[in-house]
Amino acid sequence: MSKSNVIEERAHVKLGPKDCVLGLDIGGTKIAAGLVTRDGSLLGRMHRSPTPARGTSDRMWEVVVKVCEKALAASGNPKIKGIGVGCAGPMVWPDGVVSPLNITAWRGFPLQRRLKEHFPKIPVRVHNDAITMAAAEHWIGAARGLDHALGMVVSTGVGGGFIIGNQLVDGGLGNAGHIGHVVVDPTGPSCHCGGRGCLEAIARGPSTAGWAVEQGWTPHSKEASADAKTLASDARDGDEIAIAAFARSGEAVGIALASVTALLDLDIAVIGGGLVQSGPLLMAPMRRAFAYHAGLKFQKRLRIVPAELDQTAGIVGAASLIIKSSNYWNPRDE
Amino acid sequence: MSKSNVIEERAHVKLGPKDCVLGLDIGGTKIAAGLVTRDGSLLGRMHRSPTPARGTSDRMWEVVVKVCEKALAASGNPKIKGIGVGCAGPMVWPDGVVSPLNITAWRGFPLQRRLKEHFPKIPVRVHNDAITMAAAEHWIGAARGLDHALGMVVSTGVGGGFIIGNQLVDGGLGNAGHIGHVVVDPTGPSCHCGGRGCLEAIARGPSTAGWAVEQGWTPHSKEASADAKTLASDARDGDEIAIAAFARSGEAVGIALASVTALLDLDIAVIGGGLVQSGPLLMAPMRRAFAYHAGLKFQKRLRIVPAELDQTAGIVGAASLIIKSSNYWNPRDE
Repeated sequence: MSKSNVIEERAHVKLGPKDCVLGLDIGGTKIAAGLVTRDGSLLGRMHRSPTPARGTSDRMWEVVVKVCEKALAASGNPKIKGIGVGCAGPMVWPDGVVSPLNITAWRGFPLQRRLKEHFPKIPVRVHNDAITMAAAEHWIGAARGLDHALGMVVSTGVGGGFIIGNQLVDGGLGNAGHIGHVVVDPTGPSCHCGGRGCLEAIARGPSTAGWAVEQGWTPHSKEASADAKTLASDARDGDEIAIAAFARSGEAVGIALASVTALLDLDIAVIGGGLVQSGPLLMAPMRRAFAYHAGLKFQKRLRIVPAELDQTAGIVGAASLIIKSSNYWNPRDE
Repeated sequence: MSKSNVIEERAHVKLGPKDCVLGLDIGGTKIAAGLVTRDGSLLGRMHRSPTPARGTSDRMWEVVVKVCEKALAASGNPKIKGIGVGCAGPMVWPDGVVSPLNITAWRGFPLQRRLKEHFPKIPVRVHNDAITMAAAEHWIGAARGLDHALGMVVSTGVGGGFIIGNQLVDGGLGNAGHIGHVVVDPTGPSCHCGGRGCLEAIARGPSTAGWAVEQGWTPHSKEASADAKTLASDARDGDEIAIAAFARSGEAVGIALASVTALLDLDIAVIGGGLVQSGPLLMAPMRRAFAYHAGLKFQKRLRIVPAELDQTAGIVGAASLIIKSSNYWNPRDE
């Protein structure tokens, strides 16, 4: 991104009570868009579409445009003040050139520039989807009003984002918040990042279910697939291996949280994603491990709570890059 | 601290080329003070005194005052523009009410208020000593000019501080930077913080030497005490247990650094303290463990370098709380 473009994209956008911003959430499973007002509520309904499993970069782009246009049309095509995007990483930030691990059609795809060409004369801002999710929980969710927060997701992957001193943390290259790659067990399983013992290698849904299968678990229902959702159901039925699998993943999350708040002296950690919906199966062992490893008084004060926002969090957080730029959009001049 | 006091203490202090600030460094072993100019250099010589091993809170205070007064007298008692203090933690921040773990005479000691009473009409700012050390390395040391940095010390304890986006990170209660309490081995030794497997429990000097003793090491020289300094000397002589002890501690530091930069996407980590002076004994295994666990491209870019500043770093960093307050002193209004 040119310097002038960075500065243009940094400008504060003032919204009236009837103005809105397009929030766009691009992940490996689905693409979602919706219009967000200045108080963080959705104007009309969001629109979703599955992410094309195969196909070219152009095909993927066409789906993104269609989702945006349908979301706009559903609210009578209002004039929008900007577009905020949360996209699966990694990416070159703040340029918005994306190479999502699980969207193989896009490698070095200039998402920000393409959106600007398609929707001219409004700012377009792109950030990592785990970071926009954290922004949403801080803006209108479980962390609202608190200055020092972690928002994290335990799902197919494990990711997160930080708010420190009421400001979103970007990190040097826009990659701050990768809690999934905190080492929780140095002799643990190898991770697809290339490291070993990362939180994600243990606690992500497929790894949790995979460990259970290794221990001899098979789904109680013959038709069910051996995934984290089935595992949760079987754990609630009292399956000991399934319960142990969630305990192992929960403990890994608790250890990572103890380390994170030692480093950042946080007020709150908000946890969302599929595995948290399994409730105490994950959360109880997580709290036990946290209590065991967090020895200092300021660590113990960390509040650990489930996410409050639903599946619209991605869209709302994306829109916050435009609507609440003073908190959530701070690229630095080079 | 009252709100008005917080605001008074936040005011920016403008220094002319001949002005100076008193920097005060209070640790469990020594108390040091010196005058620092606006470019971070020392005016005249620093003054040091051992920390009284026993005695009352008043006795400790008397030594602090004497060290300050001797440092001032050594430069002809110039008018000072403020006092910056790095003190061993924990403390209530930004109030400067300190209870240093290894200075038992002080429990809830109102250091900031007492200094203000003794040196009236100038601002007095107190922060954790590991944080002021990080500020010094960022201001005029190995991390200067970089926006995202960790400064850490591996010594009798293991501590640190962060600079993110060119700003010192305080955390909610002023305790950010406790890298010594990142969990590097969940089944590792118990830590004096009450947790288990913390970096400090493995890598601090006494733990490094203690582990070697457990494995059968005794100092090669009969008169030497079985501490980290002797251990380093014996390791350089080729003692295999001593070499293994440094390798174990270095690996623990490397694991913690991989986790830290996954979370904060840093440019540089600056490492100081006694154990780093042992050179490749610690640094080589540390780099190996970091390379093994840091899988993501943005993690691998972290530069890991030894500290540049000498024993004056504590004084210079303390003074930076006054001299460079726009970067290093950001208490938030309540």
